Amino acid sequence: MQRHIDGELARLKEELVRLAGLAETAIGQSIQALVSRDAELARQVIASDDQINQLEIDVDDLCLRTMALYQPEARDLRMLAMALKIVNDLERMGDQAVNIAERTLELLKEPLLKPLIDIPRMAQLAQRMVKDSLDAFVQQDVALARRVCQQDDEVDRYDDQMFRELLTHMMQDPRAITRAVNLILVSRHIERIADHATNVAEDVIYMVEGKTIKHHASS
Amino acid sequence: MQRHIDGELARLKEELVRLAGLAETAIGQSIQALVSRDAELARQVIASDDQINQLEIDVDDLCLRTMALYQPEARDLRMLAMALKIVNDLERMGDQAVNIAERTLELLKEPLLKPLIDIPRMAQLAQRMVKDSLDAFVQQDVALARRVCQQDDEVDRYDDQMFRELLTHMMQDPRAITRAVNLILVSRHIERIADHATNVAEDVIYMVEGKTIKHHASS
Repeated sequence: MQRHIDGELARLKEELVRLAGLAETAIGQSIQALVSRDAELARQVIASDDQINQLEIDVDDLCLRTMALYQPEARDLRMLAMALKIVNDLERMGDQAVNIAERTLELLKEPLLKPLIDIPRMAQLAQRMVKDSLDAFVQQDVALARRVCQQDDEVDRYDDQMFRELLTHMMQDPRAITRAVNLILVSRHIERIADHATNVAEDVIYMVEGKTIKHHASS
Repeated sequence: MQRHIDGELARLKEELVRLAGLAETAIGQSIQALVSRDAELARQVIASDDQINQLEIDVDDLCLRTMALYQPEARDLRMLAMALKIVNDLERMGDQAVNIAERTLELLKEPLLKPLIDIPRMAQLAQRMVKDSLDAFVQQDVALARRVCQQDDEVDRYDDQMFRELLTHMMQDPRAITRAVNLILVSRHIERIADHATNVAEDVIYMVEGKTIKHHASS
């Protein structure tokens, strides 16, 4: 027999997947706006953040109500507690997409510095991590969650490389300074998105295995 | 008669205050290291992050155990759920202090760009917000929490001003580029610390009033 709480937990997962979908879309669109120099799309990303923020509040309420009504046992409780943390990370991914969109609007005030190659690649990797971390949550797939954690290093390497390249670029051509600084910040925002996905993946491992790997304690 | 759960909740508050104290110290020391050009102190901040990370894990466990053992009613449950979120913010403040310390080590490779005046001021404001947000949590002081939220705008203004000034500086003197970019990143890290303090304050208001002001929904 299905327990009543299972219905609530299923709904919670659905809401988190919906929130993750919105965050993924915002990230994808912010990078799309940057690459195709589309101010309208950048503004759309900024406007869509309200929806993400509202959904975060709804998920928090759902978690708290489920905890209060069903007084869940250890495993379900752990899932609810982790959902409270995961929803934070998803909402902050949305914030990072807004930050990228804002940098894009600044970047559009000047001609393109150089063709953007590494930023879209790095963003693709980060988006993949977001998707995989949520899939890992829904399917309680620890192996997938571990892969997400490993990919974070690759995004960090991209970010370091972008930083060095753009510094060099600025030194060679001071007219490029404003654009290069804005691109450094975009790269940092993508790196933060990957960090949030890693947090989600770590929470999934904790939820499933009941032990923490946060801060690579076990690695 | 005292309920048993009250003892656990008191212990939880103590642990959060201890964690906040560690984060405050790390922030203060990272800025001190920057201002007094003290590489040893910067390295100390980076090393001390392990302690903060471990305490986050301990607080998470304490929250989950209390939820599971006492099956708390609405108000206590809300406090426990908020503690799970607040501990995240505190741990990430520690991460930002580490980021500042890392930037400091980079900045120490070159002579001082210019006397640092605004960064220490901005950092002081952010540190104050961290302290006040935790006091607001411990004393469940909504008025104090609201003041923290208001101060966030001031930190944002500092960050914008630093960004513009440092861009101008780089354009006038390309030799300053690396240092100016690192200072822009320091300013961003301080701004993030203030954001985390604001998140804590918003959680306090939610905890006490049972409604969310997140994303300035009610402002």
